[in-house]
Amino acid sequence: MTDVRDRAMMARAIQLAWRGRYSTHPNPRVGCVIARGNVILGEGWHERAGEAHAEIRALSQAGPSARGATAYVTLEPCSHFGRTPPCARALIDAGVARVVAATKDPNPAVSGRGLELLIEAGIQVEVGVLADEAARLNPGFMKRMNTGRPYVRLKMAASLDGRTAMASGESQWITGPEARKDVQRLRAISDAILTGVGTVLADDPSLTVRRTELGDIGDATEPSRQPLRVIADRDARTPPTAKILHGGNVQLFCASSTLPTAPAQDLAALGVSINGVAWKDNGIDLSELLDALGDLGINELLVEAGPTLAGTFIQEQLVDELWLYQAPVFLGSTGRPTAHLPLESMADKVSWIVRDRRQVGDDQRLILVRS
Amino acid sequence: MTDVRDRAMMARAIQLAWRGRYSTHPNPRVGCVIARGNVILGEGWHERAGEAHAEIRALSQAGPSARGATAYVTLEPCSHFGRTPPCARALIDAGVARVVAATKDPNPAVSGRGLELLIEAGIQVEVGVLADEAARLNPGFMKRMNTGRPYVRLKMAASLDGRTAMASGESQWITGPEARKDVQRLRAISDAILTGVGTVLADDPSLTVRRTELGDIGDATEPSRQPLRVIADRDARTPPTAKILHGGNVQLFCASSTLPTAPAQDLAALGVSINGVAWKDNGIDLSELLDALGDLGINELLVEAGPTLAGTFIQEQLVDELWLYQAPVFLGSTGRPTAHLPLESMADKVSWIVRDRRQVGDDQRLILVRS
Repeated sequence: MTDVRDRAMMARAIQLAWRGRYSTHPNPRVGCVIARGNVILGEGWHERAGEAHAEIRALSQAGPSARGATAYVTLEPCSHFGRTPPCARALIDAGVARVVAATKDPNPAVSGRGLELLIEAGIQVEVGVLADEAARLNPGFMKRMNTGRPYVRLKMAASLDGRTAMASGESQWITGPEARKDVQRLRAISDAILTGVGTVLADDPSLTVRRTELGDIGDATEPSRQPLRVIADRDARTPPTAKILHGGNVQLFCASSTLPTAPAQDLAALGVSINGVAWKDNGIDLSELLDALGDLGINELLVEAGPTLAGTFIQEQLVDELWLYQAPVFLGSTGRPTAHLPLESMADKVSWIVRDRRQVGDDQRLILVRS
Repeated sequence: MTDVRDRAMMARAIQLAWRGRYSTHPNPRVGCVIARGNVILGEGWHERAGEAHAEIRALSQAGPSARGATAYVTLEPCSHFGRTPPCARALIDAGVARVVAATKDPNPAVSGRGLELLIEAGIQVEVGVLADEAARLNPGFMKRMNTGRPYVRLKMAASLDGRTAMASGESQWITGPEARKDVQRLRAISDAILTGVGTVLADDPSLTVRRTELGDIGDATEPSRQPLRVIADRDARTPPTAKILHGGNVQLFCASSTLPTAPAQDLAALGVSINGVAWKDNGIDLSELLDALGDLGINELLVEAGPTLAGTFIQEQLVDELWLYQAPVFLGSTGRPTAHLPLESMADKVSWIVRDRRQVGDDQRLILVRS
């Protein structure tokens, strides 16, 4: 049982944290409220890596009134010197009497250290207020700290009869403009977008966030960069002219044996980061790839790929959320399948839980998780 | 602009009509209210062909108080002697002062005759109050009277990736028990259920309404019979042991050249009605079939067929409503398609309007009409 006021203040801190949805990566989204009783003295949220943490901004707004107040923070205050001084120290120095944290730091190496510092300084500490809600701010950061891998969202656009393109490959446009805008917002909260070289060769997508299509982002901090573009490309066949290479910030994952070849060298000369990973019969070794992306600080990975790569993600149970945009059309039985997924019997079927279902223009968006 | 009281009374008459949803076929669903001012004196609805019409039941309940009252009826009162005497005559004899009808009789041969009789008798007549709502009671009767063909509902159960079965044909059960109950209600409002011999051979369905699965039907009249079962079976291959033949009431449509053969004779000996129709390269001539079913008095036809027959219905634009039950599963890219529907380019895509979308257990039901 937590206090109603504590929950209300934490809800506000979570709101503030969400303002950083497009901008904090690779850091987590964090919000902070400094309050005395029902009066909010300071509010802050983390905007960008390298800039002030949420606590520092809230303390700065509160000024000397922070002395004896309560600090509500969506994540355990940090205890270490990173690019900024530790927030736990700042809270102690400001003289707050009480700190309420929604969740501990998920990083096993430092979890609890910030809270300990506060307790040692005589500050009253509580943890767990709106813990689930706060954790949902940062599914990728939480997962990466726990497993070393990003949180994986697989995005698909399909017809009601389960087709993503005609047999010829023609696919523009299955879904309507509102759904495509929604995908822009999905890209903007992602740290990286993964596709396969087949999609690059067939569709030549840029896979960028077009700021104008995000529309009015309200009080959110402006996106600070394009998501990293990641290409699974065994033989480094990505053409140097591909749109996805424009603007840089591209990681290419090819077979280790491809690394010394001329195509890989050409792409490296264009500024593309080239990585070698293992490949298996059914394509890239996704476990290795996800580990590597975790090492690169990717919290939230969006997969926008063709049926082969998408099918492998589903078959290997590596999808945390499937975002399925369904258009109210039939593309016919000769169209391309939603995902390459050879299953033998009903017992093999892939069952989903519908976490969210909503209308987006004429289309419907489902957010699915494995049941 | 219609009077608020008129609309309220007609809404009640429409409610009453709907009580006959499982039982009036081949007659239309009709409701009637006899009222004076705000006071309802009598209510009635048509229950079964051959039994009293709605007006007669309502007049009977009102008794002598009907004199000088207003009769609200969802369909123009009949003017002819059928299995019962004409309702227009009964309204005149009862001395009602005013008749409000939602719609005219859709049968071009008699439309307006009942109203003329009333007007000739000095009764005040109005037509068109809640006309759309009343017409929706009887989409099949309306269509059959206008075109000679039944209203066609195509029912499908598919996965989110658009598969209706595994490659082996295994398909039980894609959707959950609530969706299967919903299909029972759909069957019960249908006059006939059409399937192909392929489905009969593969699944051996009975395609009956199981009364227990309808659950509590409230104040609706009990179903009076099983829907007619209709099999498209070019070469009369339906086995005499097929479950669909149990209980009789089966019409088989084969190629005219099949009619004199032994298999057809064997089925006829079992009480199956055998019909010859034209067949085309892609299967049965659906135009001929629908005309023949219209001649049999079928108002509402439910198609529960395999991908071939379903695809032909869609391709020939003969589907009035597509009822698509979607289960939150993937059956994989080797599964059977929703419908056999070979389309070349995006320009050929079949676009639907979502008329209704609702959750049925774990599944979703969409009612789609062509856009």
